[in-house]
Amino acid sequence: MRNFKLTIEYIGTRFAGWQFQTNARSVQGAVEEALSRIFGQPVPIVGSGRTDAGVHALGQVANFRLDTPIRTWRLWRALDHHLPEDISIRDVEEVPYEFHSRMDAIGKHYRYQVLPSYIRRAWLTPYAWTVPPKLDYERLAACLPYFLGEHDFTSFRGAGCTANTSVRTITRSEVRREGDLWVMEFEGSGFLRYQVRSMVGTAVEVSRKGLPPERIAEILAAQNRLAAGMTAPAQGLFLVEVFYP
Amino acid sequence: MRNFKLTIEYIGTRFAGWQFQTNARSVQGAVEEALSRIFGQPVPIVGSGRTDAGVHALGQVANFRLDTPIRTWRLWRALDHHLPEDISIRDVEEVPYEFHSRMDAIGKHYRYQVLPSYIRRAWLTPYAWTVPPKLDYERLAACLPYFLGEHDFTSFRGAGCTANTSVRTITRSEVRREGDLWVMEFEGSGFLRYQVRSMVGTAVEVSRKGLPPERIAEILAAQNRLAAGMTAPAQGLFLVEVFYP
Repeated sequence: MRNFKLTIEYIGTRFAGWQFQTNARSVQGAVEEALSRIFGQPVPIVGSGRTDAGVHALGQVANFRLDTPIRTWRLWRALDHHLPEDISIRDVEEVPYEFHSRMDAIGKHYRYQVLPSYIRRAWLTPYAWTVPPKLDYERLAACLPYFLGEHDFTSFRGAGCTANTSVRTITRSEVRREGDLWVMEFEGSGFLRYQVRSMVGTAVEVSRKGLPPERIAEILAAQNRLAAGMTAPAQGLFLVEVFYP
Repeated sequence: MRNFKLTIEYIGTRFAGWQFQTNARSVQGAVEEALSRIFGQPVPIVGSGRTDAGVHALGQVANFRLDTPIRTWRLWRALDHHLPEDISIRDVEEVPYEFHSRMDAIGKHYRYQVLPSYIRRAWLTPYAWTVPPKLDYERLAACLPYFLGEHDFTSFRGAGCTANTSVRTITRSEVRREGDLWVMEFEGSGFLRYQVRSMVGTAVEVSRKGLPPERIAEILAAQNRLAAGMTAPAQGLFLVEVFYP
C-alpha cells in the first residue's frame, strides 16, 4: 500500500468549499472524481483541513493510500488532464505510509487581500475584499501584532466551529502593500473556523472607525464573539501553505 | 458637447474581442450598453484599436462625445455599477473636444506571458501560454532585440490585416522572469493585426528548436508570412497602455 501526498492549487470562486458534498461542486469531490477515473475505483482523499465556500488555495495538501504501480510523474500528468481548469496540482510526492495530511500538519499560512477602493477592478476584485476608503493603513498595520502569540480566540471563532479548544498560537500577523492591494499574512499552529476572516474583519473595522489598535487586545480578552467585528468575505482569503515537520 | 476619455481594464476570456458584434459578447458592446443605460440614449464610443477575442487589457482607451451635465466621478461610479464584472474602469477624464482615442494614439504597450511548464496552473494558465519545456530562456531573450527599430513587419502580419503599410517601429522588446512566468514587454508606434502574437510565437519556436537568434533578422528580411512561426494564443496577451502626446 503506497501513500501519495498532493499539493493542490484552486480558484475557490466556483466551489462550495473543500469538503465533499453530494449536491454541490467541491474541491475534494473534483479531485476524488479525477482519481477514480484514473484508477477505475473510488479513491477517498484526506485534506489538511476544510476551506469554506469561495476561499482560494495556493498550497492545500491532501493524501490518499492505494495499491498501485503508477509512477509519480504519470499520476501528476493524469491529474493535470482530468481535473477541471480551476484546480491544478503543484506537486505529487510519495510519502511514508503513516503520513496523514491533517493529523501531521503543524501549522498553516493564510493570506488575505484587501483592495481599498470605491471602484471595482476587473483583475483584483474577484480575489480581494474591496473596502471603500477611508481605510487607514498605518492603523490596520498597528492592529495586527496584537494577534501574535498564544491566545484564546473565542471572540474570533465562527458559529458551527467544532474544535475542542479555542486556544491557538499565531506566529505571523502582518500587512504589506503590493500594487493597489493590501496583503495580510497569517501563520500559526492552526486556525479555528472563520478565524482569519474574523480577525481581518475586526482589524479593518478598527481601522475604518479610527479606534485605537489596542482595541484588538480588549476583544481577545473579552472571549465573546459579539465583541469582535464582521467576518471578512471569503473571496479575499487564500490557503497558501500547510506546514509539516 | 463634452468629450470623455475612459481607461478600461478587462479580462478577455469571455469576450469575442473589443469590436462590437451583433451576436457575440464584445467589450465595446458592453461599455456602450452601460453608457446607454446611464444616459438613456445610444452612446457610441471609439476605441484606440481592436483587441482580438480572448486578449486582455489593463489600459485600453476609448472616448465618447456627449452633451451632458454629469460629473466625472459620478459617471465613473455609474459605469462601475453597470458594467459586467470582467470589465472595470481605471480612469474617467474629461478631454478637449478634439481628442480621438485612435487617431491621437502615438504608441502602445503590450505584454505577453509565457508559462514554461508541462503542467497546468489554475492561477496562471488562463492568462499565459503554457509551453512545455525545453524552452531556452537565454535564447528567447536573445531573439527579442532583433525586433527593435523600424522594420517592415510583413512576415509578422496576420491574415485579414487591413493596414496601409506594414512598416512599424518597435522601441521595447524584452523578457523578464516573474515568479514562474516569463513576461515579455513590447512597445512601439503601433502594431499590425496579430503582430505581437506572431513575434512571440516565432521567438518561442526559435528558442525551442535551438535555432540561432539571428534567425529573427532573416525572417524580418524575408517579408513573407510563411517564413515566421506560429501565432501565439490570445490568452497570454495584454494591452497594457496606450500612449498619447
